Amino acid sequence: MSTSIAVDAMGGDHAPAAVVRGAALAAADPSLRVILVGDENRIKEELRQIQRPPQMEIVSAPEVIDMHEAPAAAVRRKRNCSMAVAAGLVRDGRAQAFVSAGNSGACMACAVFYLGLLPGVDRPAIAAVLPTRSGPCTMLDSGAVVDCSPEMLLQFAIMGKAYASAMLGRPNPRVGILSIGEEDTKGNGLTKAAAALLRSSPSINFCGNIEGTALYQGEADVVVCDGFVGNVFLKASEGIGEMLVWFLRESMRRSIFTRLGALLLRPVWRSLKRFTDYAEYGGAPLLGVRGVCVIAHGRSNARAIANAIRAAGAAAASHVVDGIRVGLEESGLVNNCRAKAI
Amino acid sequence: MSTSIAVDAMGGDHAPAAVVRGAALAAADPSLRVILVGDENRIKEELRQIQRPPQMEIVSAPEVIDMHEAPAAAVRRKRNCSMAVAAGLVRDGRAQAFVSAGNSGACMACAVFYLGLLPGVDRPAIAAVLPTRSGPCTMLDSGAVVDCSPEMLLQFAIMGKAYASAMLGRPNPRVGILSIGEEDTKGNGLTKAAAALLRSSPSINFCGNIEGTALYQGEADVVVCDGFVGNVFLKASEGIGEMLVWFLRESMRRSIFTRLGALLLRPVWRSLKRFTDYAEYGGAPLLGVRGVCVIAHGRSNARAIANAIRAAGAAAASHVVDGIRVGLEESGLVNNCRAKAI
Repeated sequence: MSTSIAVDAMGGDHAPAAVVRGAALAAADPSLRVILVGDENRIKEELRQIQRPPQMEIVSAPEVIDMHEAPAAAVRRKRNCSMAVAAGLVRDGRAQAFVSAGNSGACMACAVFYLGLLPGVDRPAIAAVLPTRSGPCTMLDSGAVVDCSPEMLLQFAIMGKAYASAMLGRPNPRVGILSIGEEDTKGNGLTKAAAALLRSSPSINFCGNIEGTALYQGEADVVVCDGFVGNVFLKASEGIGEMLVWFLRESMRRSIFTRLGALLLRPVWRSLKRFTDYAEYGGAPLLGVRGVCVIAHGRSNARAIANAIRAAGAAAASHVVDGIRVGLEESGLVNNCRAKAI
Repeated sequence: MSTSIAVDAMGGDHAPAAVVRGAALAAADPSLRVILVGDENRIKEELRQIQRPPQMEIVSAPEVIDMHEAPAAAVRRKRNCSMAVAAGLVRDGRAQAFVSAGNSGACMACAVFYLGLLPGVDRPAIAAVLPTRSGPCTMLDSGAVVDCSPEMLLQFAIMGKAYASAMLGRPNPRVGILSIGEEDTKGNGLTKAAAALLRSSPSINFCGNIEGTALYQGEADVVVCDGFVGNVFLKASEGIGEMLVWFLRESMRRSIFTRLGALLLRPVWRSLKRFTDYAEYGGAPLLGVRGVCVIAHGRSNARAIANAIRAAGAAAASHVVDGIRVGLEESGLVNNCRAKAI
């Protein structure tokens, strides 16, 4: 049986062209069925420009949320925007996942509004999969919730554990807290309180505080933090990475010898690009909602969109959401919520 | 007239050998007078092993603060530790600056305890000087104060401005807030409140929110943040930098061609090392105290110590502390404090 993925055709800097092309690439896989959601005429026009486009369903959605609109207000106002209609297809069981490269705040709001949160989850989290010396590390939250409570960090830990188990082949992942020193005394109020919670949670294989240097050495499989800190971490990594590449490129122009050296190292540059790019190209899953939602980078090209669709298909096929649901139940967080509600 | 620098000979992973050797390197500059503080016998023994050691004063300090001791308690208990005696020399006017590669929390506590805070400063900040595409950027706080108020971020802005003006040749530095989006609506409670304060401060050339990517592109001369976020930023940068170097090194072993390429690029690797290392090798100035204090990295070798001593000498000679004092007075922060005290 094939997995249906609803794709927001109007989201992203290069939409709809890049999205439609990316969807066509992903639809070459017979196990995936892609539903393009957006302006029907523009989608058909893009499809006409592709040689031998695969069969794809189109669902019309007349409105679009702009990259600069305030997310919550836009989602309330534009019930027929492409993102909302795509999320609705998942809610109604017509798709198993949805993907958008549009306004990421609005995408999150759509997921929460149309799919709802899993029992035991206060706020959803965006997971980022980072390359390390010993395989991928899942960091969450990477930008959804800027001010978090210690309890939310525990929820993120359970969500990240389920994701790493189902998607990255880590049966009992080591979970750490992103902090500024290995010792328990290091950190801020939030990380210290969260460390106490994670340590006393029997289902979490807690490995303590993790610094950025240790993260990239591969000392944890899952790292939790508030969304402000996680996003600062990502942008610091991206920023210094871009600067180093710029510096190398400039310096290599220096002489005929360095130019020749750079030429001989072409296979190394290619593998470096693969090593550092795969996170961005897979999109970032939004965890904690009742369905699979993958947020692709606004700058996504067709290849990035195709990879995000494949990642969404894999998450649906490996029942990540059920894994998270079970994890939350086993940790007693769902009962806590019920108790609170009563 | 020469500038006297008190150096904690017992601080750091390779003390006293690396510190004494570094001090000897720095003392070759006739404008610097180095005072080595610590175990007299061990210092003399190290000096004997250096060929033609320059004349250096030794001040005895029998106690040492260990890297793993709780800073505040250790400073209260060990009044005769090398760090405290070095700070005391600055307080008594016998030295114009002090340098330590020891326990950085204890070093900060010594500076606050023996030198005191400048009027208008609630907490001191550690400044990190980062390389960017268009020159150095001063980021503070990089690890001294993990939970900050918006007012502290304004104080950091004034301190950073004075430092960048005096030390980095930026007469009217652009000051930004480290955040997770350029727009005013992005950020957490702290950054939004701090942005309002910085925007309404006439002495600050405020350039808004700065993301990590923009920081490394050189879009600000000074960036303020709380010490937790700043330290996460530093360690993320360090971590991914180390990982990329590791990846390149491994990949270059792949074939005879890539080995040759790596060999031809030797001048590029050397300049990359210089470009990325200079921040660490200069040590990090602690700003907001009534004197010059430079915190060197615990792993410092002799060259790093020598550079930290030179940086301390330059900060003393360019009257950074007076610049900060004037900046705080001109911004009305000193009067605010007085008003609060009354």
